[in-house]
Amino acid sequence: MDKIVKVAVIGGGSWATAIVKILCENLDYVGWYMRNTAAIEHIKREKHNPNYISSVEFETEKLGLTSNINEAVAEADILVFAIPSAFLESELKNLNVPLKNKIVFSAIKGIVPETGLIVGEHFHNLYEVPFENIGVITGPCHAEEVALERLSYLTIACWDSEKAKTVAKAMSCEYIKTKTSDDIIGSEYAAVLKNIYAIAAGIAHGLGYGDNFQSVLMSCAIREMRRFIKRVHKIKRDVNNSAYLGDLLVTGYSVFSRNRMFGNMIGKGYTVKSAMMEMNMVAEGYYAVKSAHLITTKFTRKSKTPIINAVYEILYEGKDAKTTFKKLTDKLD
Amino acid sequence: MDKIVKVAVIGGGSWATAIVKILCENLDYVGWYMRNTAAIEHIKREKHNPNYISSVEFETEKLGLTSNINEAVAEADILVFAIPSAFLESELKNLNVPLKNKIVFSAIKGIVPETGLIVGEHFHNLYEVPFENIGVITGPCHAEEVALERLSYLTIACWDSEKAKTVAKAMSCEYIKTKTSDDIIGSEYAAVLKNIYAIAAGIAHGLGYGDNFQSVLMSCAIREMRRFIKRVHKIKRDVNNSAYLGDLLVTGYSVFSRNRMFGNMIGKGYTVKSAMMEMNMVAEGYYAVKSAHLITTKFTRKSKTPIINAVYEILYEGKDAKTTFKKLTDKLD
Repeated sequence: MDKIVKVAVIGGGSWATAIVKILCENLDYVGWYMRNTAAIEHIKREKHNPNYISSVEFETEKLGLTSNINEAVAEADILVFAIPSAFLESELKNLNVPLKNKIVFSAIKGIVPETGLIVGEHFHNLYEVPFENIGVITGPCHAEEVALERLSYLTIACWDSEKAKTVAKAMSCEYIKTKTSDDIIGSEYAAVLKNIYAIAAGIAHGLGYGDNFQSVLMSCAIREMRRFIKRVHKIKRDVNNSAYLGDLLVTGYSVFSRNRMFGNMIGKGYTVKSAMMEMNMVAEGYYAVKSAHLITTKFTRKSKTPIINAVYEILYEGKDAKTTFKKLTDKLD
Repeated sequence: MDKIVKVAVIGGGSWATAIVKILCENLDYVGWYMRNTAAIEHIKREKHNPNYISSVEFETEKLGLTSNINEAVAEADILVFAIPSAFLESELKNLNVPLKNKIVFSAIKGIVPETGLIVGEHFHNLYEVPFENIGVITGPCHAEEVALERLSYLTIACWDSEKAKTVAKAMSCEYIKTKTSDDIIGSEYAAVLKNIYAIAAGIAHGLGYGDNFQSVLMSCAIREMRRFIKRVHKIKRDVNNSAYLGDLLVTGYSVFSRNRMFGNMIGKGYTVKSAMMEMNMVAEGYYAVKSAHLITTKFTRKSKTPIINAVYEILYEGKDAKTTFKKLTDKLD
């Protein structure tokens, strides 16, 4: 499979752009769909994505750029979706090429708002993609650092270990180390939950809590994540692996994380609406916490999720951040 | 025991000063030994420690300040040692009051260089303090944030849970939450190892590795710490608790950590000697890695410690940081 495999990346944002850059290190051809035709023209002409990690120079002869999602999907064996979860369903609506014979990897870290599902389940339930053809690309990886070719580690998860290995091989290069995993459900939930915890970290920072508290919050967050994922999909896993803990840390400790920034504004007293308007975008954790909270309501007492609950109450029930976090501090240790 | 207990803090640095501040929230009298007589006079006169977290104002009528360690030890039931491990033995040499009937809590995070032991073992082996009278105060806690009364969490470990509770109660206040533990050995090793990992984080930063790598390094560090402590003292523990992971994070991610700063200088090309001279002090992780490495040499293959080994090779075997870390990156995931 290795040699004839054709990969297409779906998305034109910074993470999609970083993934295309990585794939171009190993492949002679990478399909690349993005909606923005002006950006496509710019890349073809200037070799740079004008809008995201624009320092990256592409060998454009390798790129199969198209603004037609059906074209990109039709010609590829492996699809890598890297668009914000909030836009996934509206993009997929344009699709008339079936996905059920494709290998679909998600580099999306979020819940699909329309269905409340993680991306893999969404593809499985709505597009008949069998689970053994679904994969996840995850790990602590800011696209900006890929642009700088700073060493990063990715985890490539798929039930079918051969497919995981194929994608891992296509993405390994001098500045990317990969490992494979079979935990597609757990990896995806980890990537989703970490955005909620990044919002929590931002709220705490905005409220004036310091580094000591932040480290306790993160240590409680990884334990909460472990309980949550164990309830959702119980298999043997180590949440201290970089796909879980590493990803949590790079987001929770990054001042560039949009989720953390969003939380910070809430902590500083912005309303949810005004924080969203100010940021001119919706932080993925905003959708994530709604779904995660819904899932936790089905949990028994043993899987306590105080951090998810606190973020949910602040974002969706209009609870005061200061009071809610004061109560939360009693549940942490 | 609660009501008549007399506590003395041994040490005049920032962590000792922070602990005295915390204890003064609950106790009417706190013994406080420090070597520096000028600082004692200053505190008595000005209510502030002139050298460390000097913003903290003390109710001096509560303080039993003395530059005579025997006086401080003689009158106390519980001793809290908070001096750098490198100076512990030279201070203890002045002691002629026996320690064997005292309850000895260590707030020292380090290995005693003369014996290569963690502090609790040092007190047990050299000063006949029974293990049930030995405790550890640990947790992610910068003294600077205690000065600002920012919420922090401490773990108070002792085999005798009553003694742990007594100290936990004496240290709980509006800005300090405490939990107790029976893992004195594991807590101490965690506090020791985290300084080594902070040096590693500093070296990585100095060499130009970014946030993505840093998060993988920390995720590997907590797994390495788990393997290490399990070998040294196998009991049921969760290294994701704040005394282990939280403490690792607050040190590894803090730009104020002396160990991280020391590592950063090494990464930037300073020799070990010139980094120490520049810093005008020895980072505790410098001693820690020597002892930790010695311990790991007794380990079987199953407890791999690539980060400890890399830091050891750089600091003690004169190995080049860049090459050593390049090799290390292949062992991380």
